[in-house]
Amino acid sequence: MKPTDSTNLVCAVDLGGTNLRAATVDAGGTIHDRARLRTPPEADDVVAAITSTVNQCQAAAVKRGKEIQAISIVVPGSVHAETGLIVNAPNLPAIVNFPLGTTLSNRLNRPVLLENDANAAALGEFWQGAGRGSQTILCLTLGTGVGGGIILDGKLWRGLDGTAGEIGHMSVEPFGSVKCNCGNFGCLEVFASATAIVRMTREALSDHPGSSLQSIAADQLTAQAVSQAANDGDPIALEVFRRVGTYLGVAAANLVDILNPEAIVIGGGVSAAFDLFAPQMRAEIIERAFPVPAKRCRVLKAKCGDDAGLLGAARLAFDKNKQ
Amino acid sequence: MKPTDSTNLVCAVDLGGTNLRAATVDAGGTIHDRARLRTPPEADDVVAAITSTVNQCQAAAVKRGKEIQAISIVVPGSVHAETGLIVNAPNLPAIVNFPLGTTLSNRLNRPVLLENDANAAALGEFWQGAGRGSQTILCLTLGTGVGGGIILDGKLWRGLDGTAGEIGHMSVEPFGSVKCNCGNFGCLEVFASATAIVRMTREALSDHPGSSLQSIAADQLTAQAVSQAANDGDPIALEVFRRVGTYLGVAAANLVDILNPEAIVIGGGVSAAFDLFAPQMRAEIIERAFPVPAKRCRVLKAKCGDDAGLLGAARLAFDKNKQ
Repeated sequence: MKPTDSTNLVCAVDLGGTNLRAATVDAGGTIHDRARLRTPPEADDVVAAITSTVNQCQAAAVKRGKEIQAISIVVPGSVHAETGLIVNAPNLPAIVNFPLGTTLSNRLNRPVLLENDANAAALGEFWQGAGRGSQTILCLTLGTGVGGGIILDGKLWRGLDGTAGEIGHMSVEPFGSVKCNCGNFGCLEVFASATAIVRMTREALSDHPGSSLQSIAADQLTAQAVSQAANDGDPIALEVFRRVGTYLGVAAANLVDILNPEAIVIGGGVSAAFDLFAPQMRAEIIERAFPVPAKRCRVLKAKCGDDAGLLGAARLAFDKNKQ
Repeated sequence: MKPTDSTNLVCAVDLGGTNLRAATVDAGGTIHDRARLRTPPEADDVVAAITSTVNQCQAAAVKRGKEIQAISIVVPGSVHAETGLIVNAPNLPAIVNFPLGTTLSNRLNRPVLLENDANAAALGEFWQGAGRGSQTILCLTLGTGVGGGIILDGKLWRGLDGTAGEIGHMSVEPFGSVKCNCGNFGCLEVFASATAIVRMTREALSDHPGSSLQSIAADQLTAQAVSQAANDGDPIALEVFRRVGTYLGVAAANLVDILNPEAIVIGGGVSAAFDLFAPQMRAEIIERAFPVPAKRCRVLKAKCGDDAGLLGAARLAFDKNKQ
């Protein structure tokens, strides 16, 4: 396919732990057809579900006289650069070491790419979102965990094994007592994810019986509920988001000194509360990092929402075709 | 000049806070002529001293039928990418915002490059030292402070303003009480530099009146003396170096997860004590980072010694000429 020919489409598939979403994307970054299914737990069923959504998108595209030329799949895990296998996928263990790429490529008779979800989201924001016009950005996806993606001089930085970009596992309290699922202590993820917001709120509530948050049943306490309470002025909720900003700022200051990027883009569900944590995050960067790179680096809210990964995956396929 | 023509030489000048060392380097990385002076405190005198050492090297080169084609200067500060001016240089404040490059270029009638000392050292180790054969390495220079340099896919990563690579200012105890000269708290530099080794030893000694280190006069206590005591089995000194390894390991684990490099190379004066801290550093990386990139990343002792910066500066000039 010619990369600038808008009659050619990539079918991007975002394989999440819960849902599987497919969409056709053209070389200009516009999304056309969409399809969606629940993500099944077994690998063979995942292959069947992806095939089904791609075929749905293809049928819709054909009606408009278009054709899907390549498939690019966003996976919730690291893709090993040499083997093309998925190294770890805590939310979808069945696909670890399963030959997802080659199986799908044989089944769908088209080239298939795989990319880590946070890397794909970073590339999507770089291409069509908050990073547009920049060449070097870092992206953080604040959701159940904290994902990261690094774009240097316009290219995704994957590292030697394809595992780079795990900014969420930078330790911001390495000698603290909070252990991360990854085994390390004090990772950014345990202070800036939706899960962390709930945990920190619970911890704070035990000392504050008068908080408005006490009226929320324990199993209903979500990051969104804490964000709502903060917007309503609850001091505990405000303090939790200030702490999120502090930890994000510590990590960001480190990255500003080490990589001197143009921007840090914050996406994921928690970014809906951007205004509650970003001022503190920016203050920490100014306080901690060197003046020249600190002044350079903007902290931006992501713009592509749930489509960041789909767009980034599509971009990868278009880039691959240019090589 | 043709980059592969060994009759062409670069004169590399390492402008330290104390000494100024010049050397001619050929395109194969061999050092030929050398000259040395004390570093004067004023900018005009620095220009005169550099000119003098370059002229000495040139006279020696001419005798062997060679010619210096370009000058490349290692400076103890950050070089601003756009202006070419030195942004900060704590050990040689006179050169900050002084037009060192253009002044020397006019005076010596040859192209003059400037590069930060830790960046140049990283490039030197990449080209002729421990990083030889690798494409993506991180270098730490453990001296009075802790410098850092990042080589990604064979190229020095400078960031947007040329200030990248400040790995020594990654905070490994962001909420601790030890303040760094840079203004941040808990930087790697305050736990892994020669200065830090002396401070940590002093702190430990107050609780251990029986230590062999007590016999050293307070003003004679150096990182080298602590290293000697550790080699002689002094438990306080051994514990100080174990802590150095722990903090280096925390920072390294973060970098392994974020950049997935082939190797981390440790140079500078403190690297003479490599065997005293490297095992603990490696253990922390394995304990804290993801298994695949942790297994990938080697921790290596630098090989170029004091010549790393000179070699890296020369390499920059040869690379520039190839463009």
